[in-house]
Amino acid sequence: MPFSHELRVRYNECDAQGIVFNANWFTYFDVANTELWRPALGSYGALAQHGCDVVVVETGARFLAPARFDDVLAIEVAVTRLGTTSMTTESVARRDGVELVRGTTAYVFVDPVTLAKTPIPDAVRAALAPFQA
Amino acid sequence: MPFSHELRVRYNECDAQGIVFNANWFTYFDVANTELWRPALGSYGALAQHGCDVVVVETGARFLAPARFDDVLAIEVAVTRLGTTSMTTESVARRDGVELVRGTTAYVFVDPVTLAKTPIPDAVRAALAPFQA
Amino acid sequence: MPFSHELRVRYNECDAQGIVFNANWFTYFDVANTELWRPALGSYGALAQHGCDVVVVETGARFLAPARFDDVLAIEVAVTRLGTTSMTTESVARRDGVELVRGTTAYVFVDPVTLAKTPIPDAVRAALAPFQA
Amino acid sequence: MPFSHELRVRYNECDAQGIVFNANWFTYFDVANTELWRPALGSYGALAQHGCDVVVVETGARFLAPARFDDVLAIEVAVTRLGTTSMTTESVARRDGVELVRGTTAYVFVDPVTLAKTPIPDAVRAALAPFQA
Repeated sequence: MPFSHELRVRYNECDAQGIVFNANWFTYFDVANTELWRPALGSYGALAQHGCDVVVVETGARFLAPARFDDVLAIEVAVTRLGTTSMTTESVARRDGVELVRGTTAYVFVDPVTLAKTPIPDAVRAALAPFQA
Repeated sequence: MPFSHELRVRYNECDAQGIVFNANWFTYFDVANTELWRPALGSYGALAQHGCDVVVVETGARFLAPARFDDVLAIEVAVTRLGTTSMTTESVARRDGVELVRGTTAYVFVDPVTLAKTPIPDAVRAALAPFQA
Repeated sequence: MPFSHELRVRYNECDAQGIVFNANWFTYFDVANTELWRPALGSYGALAQHGCDVVVVETGARFLAPARFDDVLAIEVAVTRLGTTSMTTESVARRDGVELVRGTTAYVFVDPVTLAKTPIPDAVRAALAPFQA
Repeated sequence: MPFSHELRVRYNECDAQGIVFNANWFTYFDVANTELWRPALGSYGALAQHGCDVVVVETGARFLAPARFDDVLAIEVAVTRLGTTSMTTESVARRDGVELVRGTTAYVFVDPVTLAKTPIPDAVRAALAPFQA
C-alpha cells in the first residue's frame, strides 16, 4: 500500500481482555489517515488553505487478530476511491507483516464554515494521486 | 427496537470540530451492547458463568448527523442475527428521536480461556430472544 | 458533600490490569464537575451567557482502591475555594460508600474569546454557593 | 532531564475547546513513564521477570499552556524519589522547548499476583539509577 504510519499500542488502549479495544482501532486509522495528509499536502490543517475540510460519513473494520500492549503496528493506508465530493480510504494494521485489522473510511469534503458538501479542489485531488491504490 | 440505553455526551468525547469523534460512537455502541446483557442475563459478566465470552469480529457505522457536548442520546439495540457461534447487533443512536448514527457489530462467542469459537449456549440464546429484531 | 453524580465504569475505561486506568479518573471528575453546573446554573454551557468559561490549571488525585468494569460509582463534588478569578473543587469517588479516589481540580475563569482571566461574575458566584464545602 | 519521549497530539485528544483535554495529559505522562522502562529494563513488561509490577497511587499536574492538534511534544521524565517500595517521577511536557504541563506520578511496587506491596528489587533499582534527577 502507498502509505504506512507506525505507532505503538499504549497501555490505556487495551481493555480488561488485555487487547486493543475495538473502538481504538478507529482512532489508529484516524491517526494514519491524518498522517497521510502530511506527505500529500503538508498537513491535515493545510486543507483549510484549500477551502475545505473532511468529515467521516461511514467507517467499518474487520478484526482478524488482536494487538496487545507495547506492540508496534504499521497502519497502511490507500485512497481507494476519489469521487467528486467524497473519498474512501482503506487501512490495514499489521504487526510484523501479519494483518490484524482491515478498515475502510468514507469522507465527504465540506466547506469548513458552512459544512456544506464541496467538490474536491484540483490541487487536493492531485496531492492525493500518489496515494491511490 | 427492543432495547435502548441513554447516555450523555461528555466534553472529552468531542473533538476539535466540536462534535463526537467518530471512534467514540463505537464506544457508545459497546456500552449499549454491554447494557443489553443486563436485562438479558443479569450482566455481561454473567456470560462467564455460561462458559463463554464474546469478541468483536466486525463493526461499522454510518454517520448521518453529528452529536455535540451535553447531548442526551438514546442508543437503541437489536439482535439482528443469532448464528451457531456468532451474533450480530444493529445499533441506532438518536437525539430527540432523530437518527444520528447507525452501526452494526458482529460478535463471535469464544471459550473465555482458550478463546476458541464455541457454540452459543442454549440459555444464552434464550436470554437474547426478546431482543431480536 | 453537596453534590453527587453517578456513573458506571465502561469496559474500555479499564486497562490490561482490569482496573480503571488512572487518567480516566480525571475524565470522571470532569464529568461530575460538569454536571455540577446543571443544578447550579442550568448547564456548563450557560457559563457563556455570563461572559465566561473555565479552564483547568491544576489537578491531582490519590488512588486508594481500584474500580473495575461495571462498577457503579458515586462521584461527589464540593467547591472548596472560590477566589476572585479561580475556583477549586474536591471530588471523591465512592463505590458502595467506600472511598476509592480523591481528587482536586483548580479552575481559572476566562473570557471565552480572549481566554484572559476574568473575575467570577456575581451571578455565577451565587449559583455556586450551595455547593461550597 | 534524563529521559525524553516525543509524541504528536492526535485529533481525538483535543476537546471542543480545541486543546488537549486535561485527562489526556496523564495518558501522555503514562506513555512517557512506560517508555522510560525500555532503556532502563528492556520494557515495562520486563518488570514481571523481576517479580513485580507498579501501580499509580498519586498523580497531579499543573497546566501552564495548552497544546493543540498536530503539536509535537517532548515529554521529559526524571525519577525524583526511589523509596523502599515506591517511586516518584516528575514529567514535563514541552513544545519547542517551552514548558506546557508539569506533572508528578507516585508508584508503589507490588507483587503482580497478590498486588501486595513489595520492595523494589535491587536490579530494578540499579536500572533506574541513570534516570534519577
